[in-house]
This record gives sequence, C-alpha cells and structure tokens, in this order.
Amino acid sequence: MSALVSALTAPMRFVARRAKRGEDAIEYETCEEFDPSKYEHLAAPFPQVDERDAKTPDVWVKRHPDLVRLTGKHPFNVEAQLPQMIDYGWVSPVNLHIVRNHGAVPQLKWSEHTITVKGNVDRKLKITMDELASMRNITFPCLVTCAGNRRKEQNQIKQSIGFNWGPCAVGNTYWTGVPLREVLKKAGVTKPGPGRRFVCFAGPQKELPKSYDNQQGGPGSYGTSIDMETALDPSCDVILAIKQNGKELHPDHGYPVRVLIPGYIGGRMVKWLTEIEVTGEESDNFYHFNDNRVLPSTVDAEKANAEKWWFKPEYIINNLNINGAIAYPWHNELVDVERKSYTLKGYAYSGGGRKIIRVEVSLDQGMSWRLAPFFTEEKPRWAAGSSGDRAKHWCWFLWELDVTVSEMAEAKEILFRAWDQSQNSMPERPTWNVMGMLNNPWYRVRVHKEGSMLRFEHPTQAGPDKDEGWMVNMANKAGGHLNWGWGGSGTPAVP
Amino acid sequence: MSALVSALTAPMRFVARRAKRGEDAIEYETCEEFDPSKYEHLAAPFPQVDERDAKTPDVWVKRHPDLVRLTGKHPFNVEAQLPQMIDYGWVSPVNLHIVRNHGAVPQLKWSEHTITVKGNVDRKLKITMDELASMRNITFPCLVTCAGNRRKEQNQIKQSIGFNWGPCAVGNTYWTGVPLREVLKKAGVTKPGPGRRFVCFAGPQKELPKSYDNQQGGPGSYGTSIDMETALDPSCDVILAIKQNGKELHPDHGYPVRVLIPGYIGGRMVKWLTEIEVTGEESDNFYHFNDNRVLPSTVDAEKANAEKWWFKPEYIINNLNINGAIAYPWHNELVDVERKSYTLKGYAYSGGGRKIIRVEVSLDQGMSWRLAPFFTEEKPRWAAGSSGDRAKHWCWFLWELDVTVSEMAEAKEILFRAWDQSQNSMPERPTWNVMGMLNNPWYRVRVHKEGSMLRFEHPTQAGPDKDEGWMVNMANKAGGHLNWGWGGSGTPAVP
Repeated sequence: MSALVSALTAPMRFVARRAKRGEDAIEYETCEEFDPSKYEHLAAPFPQVDERDAKTPDVWVKRHPDLVRLTGKHPFNVEAQLPQMIDYGWVSPVNLHIVRNHGAVPQLKWSEHTITVKGNVDRKLKITMDELASMRNITFPCLVTCAGNRRKEQNQIKQSIGFNWGPCAVGNTYWTGVPLREVLKKAGVTKPGPGRRFVCFAGPQKELPKSYDNQQGGPGSYGTSIDMETALDPSCDVILAIKQNGKELHPDHGYPVRVLIPGYIGGRMVKWLTEIEVTGEESDNFYHFNDNRVLPSTVDAEKANAEKWWFKPEYIINNLNINGAIAYPWHNELVDVERKSYTLKGYAYSGGGRKIIRVEVSLDQGMSWRLAPFFTEEKPRWAAGSSGDRAKHWCWFLWELDVTVSEMAEAKEILFRAWDQSQNSMPERPTWNVMGMLNNPWYRVRVHKEGSMLRFEHPTQAGPDKDEGWMVNMANKAGGHLNWGWGGSGTPAVP
Repeated sequence: MSALVSALTAPMRFVARRAKRGEDAIEYETCEEFDPSKYEHLAAPFPQVDERDAKTPDVWVKRHPDLVRLTGKHPFNVEAQLPQMIDYGWVSPVNLHIVRNHGAVPQLKWSEHTITVKGNVDRKLKITMDELASMRNITFPCLVTCAGNRRKEQNQIKQSIGFNWGPCAVGNTYWTGVPLREVLKKAGVTKPGPGRRFVCFAGPQKELPKSYDNQQGGPGSYGTSIDMETALDPSCDVILAIKQNGKELHPDHGYPVRVLIPGYIGGRMVKWLTEIEVTGEESDNFYHFNDNRVLPSTVDAEKANAEKWWFKPEYIINNLNINGAIAYPWHNELVDVERKSYTLKGYAYSGGGRKIIRVEVSLDQGMSWRLAPFFTEEKPRWAAGSSGDRAKHWCWFLWELDVTVSEMAEAKEILFRAWDQSQNSMPERPTWNVMGMLNNPWYRVRVHKEGSMLRFEHPTQAGPDKDEGWMVNMANKAGGHLNWGWGGSGTPAVP
C-alpha cells in the first residue's frame, strides 16, 4: 500500500481535532503554514526563452519546453503531460500550469499598471499595483482549470468550437491576493443593490486578435462578469491575485494581477486585470456571451447563432463540475506482466467548493468498483462540522490505488470516476456540446496485451499532432464522427 | 403545444423584471402572493378515518385512502400514485403528500406541547406553541422527499435495508414557520463557536418501536443534527414549521411542529419536534448514524456494521441529489396508436437550492435527447443575478413534452433525465448502496405494442404487493439479483 493511504484521512483528522478543541468555524484567511521559501522551486519560470517563441510577439516570455502546445506556437495554449504534473505532487509547478491565451501576452509593468474601478460605485478608483500589494493579502491553494479540460475526447464525437485540451488543463497552486470585496469596499460597494448586481472584469484593450467595439472592457478586450453576491461573499474567496506559489505572477498567468474565483471555470478569471466595473446587468463583452456556455447536445454552432442560444441564461457555466483523470498508467506506458503490483494514480476535483468524497476504479467495465484512497493538503476553508457540507474545497484531490499486474492483464479497461459531497458523480457517457465544455465522463484507459508487456491506451493525447488514442481510433474508423457519446449500445465496443 | 410551454420562461421573466427595476437582492421572507384561502382545498385532511387504521394506534388519524401503504397498515409509510399527484399541479395536496413514520403518530396537543432548547446555550428555553406562533413567521414553498425516493428500483438489484419507495415519495407544498435562527437567537446563540458546532433535533421519547437509551433525544426518540452554519444561514431557510398549505400541520406531518430544512433529505426534518440541543458534536442519536447515509456499492449491511462504515463522515447525506421521474404515461397506461399526439409529463428537482436548468427526453435509447419545457412557480429566494448561481430553488420543476404517438410506437423506451445548475445530471445506471438512498438514474418507461394499443411499463410499482414493472421482471428472471446496475453491457437488453 502506498504512502498516500496513511495521508488519506488527514483532512478528516484535522476537522475532528478542530471540533474537539471546540474551535470556532473560523475563516482561514491566512495559511499560516504557507512558507514561500518552501515553494520557490515550484514558482520559478523556466530559465530561458523557448526557441519556438522566437518569431512571435511572445519572444520575451520564458516557458517550459515540455509544455504541449495545443494551438501551434502562438497564441500560447498549453498543458503539461499529466504524469509529469502528478509527479510533482499536490502542489503544481507554475511553469507546467495550464495557460489559455487568446493573443499575445500583454507586456505590463508593475510600476505602470493600474486597475480602474468604475461603474455604479460611490468612488471611482484607479489602483496602482503598489497600492494593491499594500492592502490585506491572503494566501490559499486553489485549482485552476479551463472548462475545456478533456475536450479532445468530446471532439472525437463531433468537432466542437474549441481546440483539443487533453486531461491536464489543470494546475493546483498557492495564490496570494487581495479579496475583491475589500477593493469594492474602497469604492463604496458593500452590498448588492439597484444597478449593483454584477461585477465585470476586463483585461487590456487590443489584447485579442478580434476587436469588438462598444463592449465592456473596450475594443479587443477579454471581459466577463460574476454576480455581486459571489463577489462579496467572504466564503467564496474571490481575490485579485498578485502571486502564485509565493512569487509574482508569470506573464502567462496574468502578471501583474489576475482575478481568481475559486471553484469557478478558468474562463471567468480575467488575467492582466485592467478594469472592474459595477453594473446592473451582466457584462456585454463578446466573450462573456459567446464563450463559457454548455448548450444542449442538439444545438450546433449554426443553430446557436441563428436562435440566439448564447443569450439564454440557463446555459451559462460558472462553477466547475466534477471531473478527473488517470495519470498512471499513462498513454503507451508499458508494464511487464511479470511485475507484481502497480499503483494507479490520478486526480479528481469538483466545483463550487464541493468536496470529493469518493474515488472509484473499475477493472471489469463498471460491473464492480473498488475504492481508491485519495487525499488533499487543503485545510477546509470556512470549515463547519464534520459533515463537510459547508467547508469549501478549492483544490484537487490526488488518488492512488494499488492493483496487481495480473488483474490489470485480465482487464479490458481501467475506469475511473469520482463522487462529490452532493452525491454527484461523473457520467458513464459524454454528452456533446457545441463548445466542448465540462466534458467529464468516466476516464477510460484501455489495456493491450503485447507479448510479455501490457500497453495502455488513453482516449486521446493532447496536442494537434497526436492522432492517437482509442477514442481517436474509433472516431477515425467512424469517419471522424463517433456516435458512441450519443449512446445506444452503452459501453463502447473494445476494438 | 401544452399550456406549460407559455409558463416556461415565467421565472426567467420574473428575474429579468426585477433586475430591470434595479431591485435589491432581497430576502423573500414573506410570499406576498401566498393567500391561504387559495390553498384550502390542498390543505384539508381526508374527511374520515380509513378503516385500515381501525386496529392500529393511529386509529384517530384521517388519511387519504388512495395513498399506497408501503409497510403494511402500520407504521404509516405512504406515497401517492404519481399521476394523481401531478394532476394537482405544482402545489401538492397535503393529504397525498409522502409520509415516513417509524411508529405510531404521537398524539400531541397544541396547548400542551413545548419545545425545549438546551445544551450549550446562554438561556435554556421552553417554548410553547402559542409563543412560537407569535414569533415572526415566514411562508414559502418547498419540496419534501425521502432520500429513499425510487428505492424500489434499487432493491431489484439487491435488497437494501430500506423498504420499497416508488417514484412519488415527494410533495411540494407551502410551509409556514419560524426561522430556526430566531429561536436560537432567543437562546443567545447567534454564531458558531466552541461547543456550538451543531444543532440537534429530537422528536418525542418512546415514539419509536426500538428504544435506544443514552442518546440525544432520549429513549425511543428519533433525532439527528445539522451544522450550526446551516442552521444560522438566512439563505438556508431552516424553519420550525407549524403550517402546511396555510393550515396547521396534519398529525402525519408533524403536528404541531416539525423542522423544515429546504434542499435537504427528509430524514433530517424531525417531526413532532420536542427538543433542540446545541452541541459541539453531531447528534449521537441512533438514527443519526445508522440512517441517511450513502455507502459505497461494495459495502453491505454486515460489512457496514463490522467495519463501522456508519461513522465515516464522508458518507453522510444532507442535501438532495438531482432526481425526477415520468408520471405520464403511467404504468400499464394504454394509448391508442391511432391517436395523434401525447403529452409526456413528470417532475425534476435537485438539492442544496440548485436550479434545474434542463430536462431531456430520449426515444432512441439515449442516442439523442430532446428538450422538454419545464416550469416552477417558485420565486427565486435570495435571488442574485441572471446566472442563477446564488438564487435558491427549494421546489420541484414540472415538465411536459408533446410527442407523436407514432414516434412513441417506434421507441423501445422513453427515457428522462434532468440537469442542474452545477452541470450535474442523472446517471445512466444506478449504483447500489446498502440503504438504497438517493437512487437517481435515468427514468425509463418501456413501450409495448399490443394490438392497436401501446402499453407502457415503469421499472417498478410502489407497494409491497406490486410484483410488476420491467425491472422487477428482470430481477425475477435473474433470481432476484439484477446485476444490470453494476454495469457491463450498458443499456439493459429489452426483453
């Protein structure tokens, strides 16, 4: 049994100890345990510029060469190879952390950058970075992921609008910043009210290749909004982040300041934050309405535009849904059948602060499920009783399960699913949607016997040049349009 | 198209209107629209005593004869036939509302009953019903359901500890009562703190056939607890309810007073409330630990006891999960194939205040899903922006979908599933658990062609004597142990 097992119940013990001491349900606003020096090796950028950035506007940005570039060289949209990320453990290195850029990285200077706070406020503000840094900062760990995590699987069913994320559009790091509610307070906004229903965020103008005028944030700005209640609720932990793993932000992650909204999809966490606007209506930024939605499976891009599906309020997505993946065995990994045991590994997370309560693995196509030990290093923030219903969990949970190689050899697939405290689990089949968002079916790794070795096959491999994986193969055979996701015969036929 | 369709967007229009007027995100503590006289016909008990109660301790309780008795005559555990319930519309009649009794109904008198508030409080209280009624009352609609709703389906996989609920262990009514936080305030408890982490509730002693001494609530009392944060959070709406649909409670529903915890499973809403205790630990009542849990599928009753699974905090259930069912066509309903169209009907709900955002029906085994119009009459309480992430929804949503009879005739099954605002949906297959709790897979109605008629078959029928339904038939054929739930071949073979 692995070392993880003993760590399994640490958070529960933590809660129990606190309850025993009769401590108040306090706000864990400072992570006393957070010692920046401990995370230096996980905060530094790669030491030199990648030659692939030589002829791009991002030539000045230092990036890890191992990152898989999903949209060519530029703009920079990357994920790490999942096993490499998992090898680092529960805290991810900044330089392997997912990046989602729409255009060139804005070249901003700490000494010159300001955040404008405007709209329906008592006092308009222009906050310098020094002013922001001098306000009360809090540090806590938080997962950041694109709502498109695992989208490449969904693109095998039918091409969505989005590009091919694999299962590592995730990073779990410590963030330091100023609570948004304290910035709003400075502007005289302490509660929702007439004309104060939303907080809009925008990045720099002309950041994006496409320019939309007359929108929140101005031409070429990426903007979106959240509701005022979430912005003001202390237990939602929305911050303007200025450090990641204890060090100033990397340019790809929003230097000098970005929004961090724990439990939310990454698409609302505006980077290079330039403008905060208090309004009575949602942001009218192009990207607020035309991105970050889950539409029904029958709605394709044409229909979405023609019938204005982007503007129907029920299809907006804010909080993440439950998701996760298998990191070990990795795609094409070979395991000698003579080996005795093997440790499966992966991650799981949910949205809205909901705790992962169960991780399960099946080696018999879902006929039976065994429990996998899992752990988090997160102190339950806003903690309540042992039921855990009120404590917020913003981070991923890592899991490990020891199995014998002989039982893996008998399995057709290794299946993984997780459950959260709302008794929601990952679905058996995907449901296609036009943006390919929040894809979270059981993660399935196929097992192939090749001589004296077992070879493992993931559904897809991140990257535009990776035409492999069992789902890709099935889609290729089906002419690029795999209808397994739509159901019918249930579990996919193993080729 | 049915009348429901035009009502479909009413709640959205409501939100939009409020936002337009620039209204504050106010607390809807009084339902101004609630006019008790409008609900009189939905509040009255059945006019006479059912002769089946003649030789039971409940001989004095007036009950609707149409209710399906699930555990014999006594104790009284009942649900309505779903179509009859749905025919009443969005507000359910009290006398068809689910009842879960463990023993005889306590014969309590308004003039004599008191609630004791004790434990770690500043001021111990003994509150009379007149005192309670004179405090600030609020009225709002709320679904109440047993966590065992739809359990009979799960019992076909393998018998659980629980009895056979069909899909109508639900009721959606208006409740009137005093916010729990105001009672706690009277006792000097206004925030969580040392020794003030939980609020325990208990019904009368000797209510239950089994007597457990040395437990919260005393011998033979049904008790449980919730965390202090939920108890105190205004947006959680926990009340001590004294009226249902505008009239004093029916004895089966807790006369003179019960706890109502919106979004929670019914098992925590203690009826005939006698005692409130503020504690530093969860309730140690027998039923708090040995009931209302979802354990992993590999844990049976023997293992649960031997390995103390009841005491592992991650398996407690509080908030409901997403669920629903098809009411029309009902079991064994016949439809002439010459008929042109048919209106499918049903309900859907989720837990924790999460809104239903999508209802889908499939006539091709899940290969494609069409959207069903759905509606609620609930005003979004604690409403925020149009995203709806913060507004709480405590009620069910009713849905209807017009289909042609000819397409029903071509279908093997009619499948229903719903989605909530956390992008969680109902799973394709059930996952068995030892208590048979929170069973929520796709609801499947089979279509049989019989001459010139279509006959419809539900998975089960509520009631101990109802040995019918396609899942029951499959289980009978499989020797009472249907392993479809555990997976393997995906969608069940249609016999």
